[in-house]
Amino acid sequence: MAEYTLHCFAQSGNAYKVALALELAGADWEPVYVPFFKGGARTDEFKAKNIMAEVPVLDHAGKTMSQTGVILGYLTGTLGKYAPSDANEALRWILWDNHKLTANMATWRFLRNFAPEAMRNEDVIGFLKGRAVGALKTLNAHLDSREWIVGDTMSTADLSCIGYMYYADEYDFDWAEVPNVTAWRDRIKAVPGWKHPYDLMPGHPIPE
Amino acid sequence: MAEYTLHCFAQSGNAYKVALALELAGADWEPVYVPFFKGGARTDEFKAKNIMAEVPVLDHAGKTMSQTGVILGYLTGTLGKYAPSDANEALRWILWDNHKLTANMATWRFLRNFAPEAMRNEDVIGFLKGRAVGALKTLNAHLDSREWIVGDTMSTADLSCIGYMYYADEYDFDWAEVPNVTAWRDRIKAVPGWKHPYDLMPGHPIPE
Repeated sequence: MAEYTLHCFAQSGNAYKVALALELAGADWEPVYVPFFKGGARTDEFKAKNIMAEVPVLDHAGKTMSQTGVILGYLTGTLGKYAPSDANEALRWILWDNHKLTANMATWRFLRNFAPEAMRNEDVIGFLKGRAVGALKTLNAHLDSREWIVGDTMSTADLSCIGYMYYADEYDFDWAEVPNVTAWRDRIKAVPGWKHPYDLMPGHPIPE
Repeated sequence: MAEYTLHCFAQSGNAYKVALALELAGADWEPVYVPFFKGGARTDEFKAKNIMAEVPVLDHAGKTMSQTGVILGYLTGTLGKYAPSDANEALRWILWDNHKLTANMATWRFLRNFAPEAMRNEDVIGFLKGRAVGALKTLNAHLDSREWIVGDTMSTADLSCIGYMYYADEYDFDWAEVPNVTAWRDRIKAVPGWKHPYDLMPGHPIPE
């Protein structure tokens, strides 16, 4: 058994935040597929691990953890990597990511690409896109004079905000509108060992 | 000048999280009104304080802080109150609150009550309501066997999740569906010194 077990699926940018952290650090980890699109995060068994019914869940050293902001902080200790130079500033961006960036990008993309036809309401999708693009522009402004979100190195704040960025062609958005974000995305992609979420976690394409 | 200055407005449940923490601790604090509905959080002056263009912002001891999850953690140190018995478990709920509970409740309520007529799309409002009610039911399940979100006392996790709960009649929702949430809401309301957000922060009703 691997040292770290990550309950995840390929389409989850939230799970990717943790998978990428583990992979780039060369950790001994293995994914366990959660059949999210068949309700795999809403079973009683899964909710006993995480009442929030959300992926990812990480098992390590007898502990079961959820919420990427908690897990990434934990990994700074066990992996000895990604610790931000300013913990409060990193937490500020991780909270903002959860509230404004990931929350809207994930839901916008889900409705466009994965939701049942009856859920694909164009007004809802347009609303979520507006919110997500607003968040992308905030991040773009922050990255105007810097390479990383906090301090001078890649930290937990970058790993949090990067979650949904590599599914780039699954959004109807011209990424040239946020050039600092795309440059930052390419900077992380250039880290040795980088993999796309579809190559790092199981479940792409979605099994029948 | 008061020891703490909170940039806020009465309709912001996010600002309320901090205002309530300060008030219940008997802190020396004063609110500064941000005319949010007239773009007061999007001015260059405000964005110089918080590039995220969001309320609340707290000034204390020469520091300027934003994101309630950061501020509440800071206040556990300066006020000596609300520290959770398990910091990671509290952070888990604070992140979830930002991502799933507050994010959807705040936007649902905004569109129903405060948005310009042209923005009040019933499909969007219905979508956000569905997401918010799902989050309320998760919290209700968590509170099934406990009085507080983490441990045996009111902590930062409770102060985070309580943000939008007292604007109860501004949602088209039967709160009897989440009896543990309403009992927990009444528990916080019973803490000596409790005030409704409209009585604690300036701007209600919204100035002309």
